[in-house]
Amino acid sequence: MTRTAPLDIDAFRRDLGDIPVEDNPKLVLQKSRDFYWYSPVLKRQLDHVTADLVVTPRTIDDVVTTLASAHRHGVPVTPRGAGTGNYGQAMPLSGGAVLNLAGLTKVVASSPMTVRAEAGAILARIDEETRAAHGAEMRFHPSTYRTATIGGFVAGGSGGVGSIRWGGLRNFGNIISLKVVTCEASPRILDIEGTDILKVAHAYGTNGIIVEAEVPLTAGYDWVDVLAGFDTIEDAVRFARNVALQDGMLLKEIAPIAAPVPHDYFVRHQKFIRKDQSVVVMMAAPQAMAALSIFLAHEKGEMLYRSDAASEEDLKRLPPAYELAWNHTTLRGLKVDPSITYLQTQYPDLETLKKIIALLGDEMPMHNEMIRFDGRVVFSGLPIVRFSTEERLEEIIRIHEDNGCLVFNPHRYTLEEGGMKRSDPGQLAFKREADPKGILNPGKMIAWENPDFDFASGKAWLFSGLQSAGAD
Amino acid sequence: MTRTAPLDIDAFRRDLGDIPVEDNPKLVLQKSRDFYWYSPVLKRQLDHVTADLVVTPRTIDDVVTTLASAHRHGVPVTPRGAGTGNYGQAMPLSGGAVLNLAGLTKVVASSPMTVRAEAGAILARIDEETRAAHGAEMRFHPSTYRTATIGGFVAGGSGGVGSIRWGGLRNFGNIISLKVVTCEASPRILDIEGTDILKVAHAYGTNGIIVEAEVPLTAGYDWVDVLAGFDTIEDAVRFARNVALQDGMLLKEIAPIAAPVPHDYFVRHQKFIRKDQSVVVMMAAPQAMAALSIFLAHEKGEMLYRSDAASEEDLKRLPPAYELAWNHTTLRGLKVDPSITYLQTQYPDLETLKKIIALLGDEMPMHNEMIRFDGRVVFSGLPIVRFSTEERLEEIIRIHEDNGCLVFNPHRYTLEEGGMKRSDPGQLAFKREADPKGILNPGKMIAWENPDFDFASGKAWLFSGLQSAGAD
Ligand SMILES: Cc1cc2nc3c(=O)[nH]c(=O)nc-3n(C[C@H](O)[C@H](O)[C@H](O)COP(=O)(O)OP(=O)(O)OC[C@H]3O[C@@H](n4cnc5c(N)ncnc54)[C@H](O)[C@@H]3O)c2cc1C
Ligand SMILES: Cc1cc2nc3c(=O)[nH]c(=O)nc-3n(C[C@H](O)[C@H](O)[C@H](O)COP(=O)(O)OP(=O)(O)OC[C@H]3O[C@@H](n4cnc5c(N)ncnc54)[C@H](O)[C@@H]3O)c2cc1C
Repeated sequence: MTRTAPLDIDAFRRDLGDIPVEDNPKLVLQKSRDFYWYSPVLKRQLDHVTADLVVTPRTIDDVVTTLASAHRHGVPVTPRGAGTGNYGQAMPLSGGAVLNLAGLTKVVASSPMTVRAEAGAILARIDEETRAAHGAEMRFHPSTYRTATIGGFVAGGSGGVGSIRWGGLRNFGNIISLKVVTCEASPRILDIEGTDILKVAHAYGTNGIIVEAEVPLTAGYDWVDVLAGFDTIEDAVRFARNVALQDGMLLKEIAPIAAPVPHDYFVRHQKFIRKDQSVVVMMAAPQAMAALSIFLAHEKGEMLYRSDAASEEDLKRLPPAYELAWNHTTLRGLKVDPSITYLQTQYPDLETLKKIIALLGDEMPMHNEMIRFDGRVVFSGLPIVRFSTEERLEEIIRIHEDNGCLVFNPHRYTLEEGGMKRSDPGQLAFKREADPKGILNPGKMIAWENPDFDFASGKAWLFSGLQSAGAD
Repeated sequence: MTRTAPLDIDAFRRDLGDIPVEDNPKLVLQKSRDFYWYSPVLKRQLDHVTADLVVTPRTIDDVVTTLASAHRHGVPVTPRGAGTGNYGQAMPLSGGAVLNLAGLTKVVASSPMTVRAEAGAILARIDEETRAAHGAEMRFHPSTYRTATIGGFVAGGSGGVGSIRWGGLRNFGNIISLKVVTCEASPRILDIEGTDILKVAHAYGTNGIIVEAEVPLTAGYDWVDVLAGFDTIEDAVRFARNVALQDGMLLKEIAPIAAPVPHDYFVRHQKFIRKDQSVVVMMAAPQAMAALSIFLAHEKGEMLYRSDAASEEDLKRLPPAYELAWNHTTLRGLKVDPSITYLQTQYPDLETLKKIIALLGDEMPMHNEMIRFDGRVVFSGLPIVRFSTEERLEEIIRIHEDNGCLVFNPHRYTLEEGGMKRSDPGQLAFKREADPKGILNPGKMIAWENPDFDFASGKAWLFSGLQSAGAD
């Protein structure tokens, strides 16, 4: 959508009735941003982006009212959960309204097998309820567990802590059903199941507003946080692979991270870690700890920290292990050294991974997340990059691709460029139905905005509807 | 142990005090047998084997008393759980006493994480208790779930229903600890943990009597039984592999079985199955059923039966799906056609599997169990063999080995020949400590009986202490 006439925000607002609205520019700016600033590229492109106002529905009916009004007046609507996305996904590129779903927080229903919650429910709160009721918890969660919403995770996330056992959101069976509101003259409330889920999940809210999500549960445990030390990153990744292949040891998290990242960036854990030590961050089921500590010793790793043997004081002081992993590794790095950035990669096997490590050395300290990908244990990469120029960043991406490693570019705000670099016909077709005016999160689905874009061109796509101030 | 003088059974018996003993030859013969008759080879070799008496301890102290007396008088002791082993493991090759552990049935302790039970506790009974108390169940069990004991499973089994998610007993972490009684002048009661577990587990009771076992639990569900039909066995194994790789669909059992086995041998399910249909037997978590039925349709399989949509009458009449799988497939076959037998194999990938299927055709109708083996999904094979001669059986084994497929020969009664065809130094060393006289289950550990045996000779080993009647 390219904006032609000025938006009639006042008319849009009048039709909202008593639904809470915020238009204080400072507060609106706050709620127009996510963690886009991880990327120096997105920071440059999106720093000026802001909405005109923030709408905070209290009920699903409020969502329906808001979308009907937006459709009537052609006002762009960008949904937002907690705004912890990393690619500017939740940023209103064409202004208009941010639809803040943080007010819809109810756990609607749960059993030992599944939980259904409203979109704005925070992931850790959902698990608290299901653990109390059933001793069960969700299969996996992003490391932003304590802040992110289930709607934002389904619409913008991929996987996380637990993906070593269960794969990620893209894997069939990991989302049971969604309730979605369309953006039409009379918005429909759709119950979406089966393969239709793939049309709406990970669509950045471009083709419908998720108001409820149902996901499967598994056994909940008091996971033990473990840090294991190794002399080299090669030893750490080998151990991580080997322990990931142990079917009898239940681990929820396995992340090898190259020295000096753990010592330098994990400030509160620093006393446990030598500067030259590469670390594998783990979470283990209590009943796996005996086996894990033997296996670790056998593989010549050093037990640096285990939460089941930590002092009261350390337990109070230290963040949970998962907040050292996934994109929290990068976050902790950025706090110490704001000049770094990162990549999202995938390494098919240990040999390829070691080759990339050798090629890039300390310019790109390696960080992997062990995950299951279509039934196989693979190295998902979130390496730190010591940023110099955008050109060099592109070169590092090319080095990966030339060596047969996938790159999911986190320096792009579109679905396609951050993903598999092709459009998803199912998502596009569903957008035609659910958002005929194209006002849901404009600028994020290239297939909609520019069906002829050539992904092989090697050029980044730039949304022509991007608010002009500063967009270059 | 080769018997030299006649056993002084009376003296042994006197020292047992009031521990229950059975010496009725018919009843003793019954308790001296397992499912060795699956194999025409073992049937010929072991048909005459019987103990002198059966001792049934009521407590761990009774086990200590029995072993002290056996040591004093040099009486062989062969432990027995439910006697459902397939390789004559529980058969007293040199006579003496069968130590029947079926009287030790208590669940000693449980939490949502682990359960500890006495050796004679039946697996299904243990799960009943932990499901009632914690909604949790053991990770996997043999298809003899409703009859086999936990001690017999740990001492003689390998894995089973659930191994597609958790691997098997050999995988570190799947047994937490064991309580073991040694066979010495003053038997010791040892608590065995960590790597020491590997010395006692799957040792056929040759180096200690397991009196308690502790294993991890996972979430328990009302598993849904599913039979899916395919036009060819090739389609069935491809589907089985593909569904096994779906990380988001929780399945506990996946077994592709070639036509005409399902129709001909699954008599009570026959009305659901065409004669030319190959079948994949599955057990799915209820929350996976929606995804599974879509995936099945997508892969062109036919839903023949699902227990969550079955009539009351069918539910009463039909055995559980797991009693069509693992060695129950063979058992059902033997009931219809006593001339068949089977093999235990492993296929590294789909291509190799298809090659073997093409080479052997209906002489060996394929049956696989999908399992995780060191973190990878593989085809574990339990193919039916239309038996002609022992020579041809050996030839079929050679065809497997020549094509890079492992064979665990189920027509041998020793640990080594039925396993990796090499001796286990840890098990041997532990036998020296725990059974210095070598009277525990004599004849099953070649490493003890004949340290110089050449496993590469291609010849079957024959225990010289085997009771002579009929042993050829
Ligand atoms: C430190 C850090 C660590 C992270 N770790 C992980 C990780 O481990 N795994 C992972 O997958 N991600 C990770 N992320 C990214 C992000 O935190 C997660 O994907 C998170 O689940 C997003 O939830 P949110 O509520 O913050 O969504 P938001 O950021 O608010 O939204 C995400 C996207 O979904 C859309 N959206 C939000 N709500 C809805 C809705 N109800 N209906 C339709 N569309 C909607 C938004 O428009 C946006 O496009 C991390 C980010 C940071 C900063
Ligand atoms: C129809 C059928 C299906 C089967 N399916 C499977 C399967 O899916 N997976 C599988 O692994 N096996 C399977 N088996 C083999 C067998 O049923 C299992 O291994 C079972 O767990 C054995 O338990 P049990 O109590 O019958 O042991 P038993 O047969 O009584 O004993 C097995 C071995 O352990 C020893 N032993 C028994 N108790 C003790 C003890 N307390 N301490 C020390 N040693 C002891 C015995 O001497 C013997 O060597 C199957 C067998 C049949 C007939």
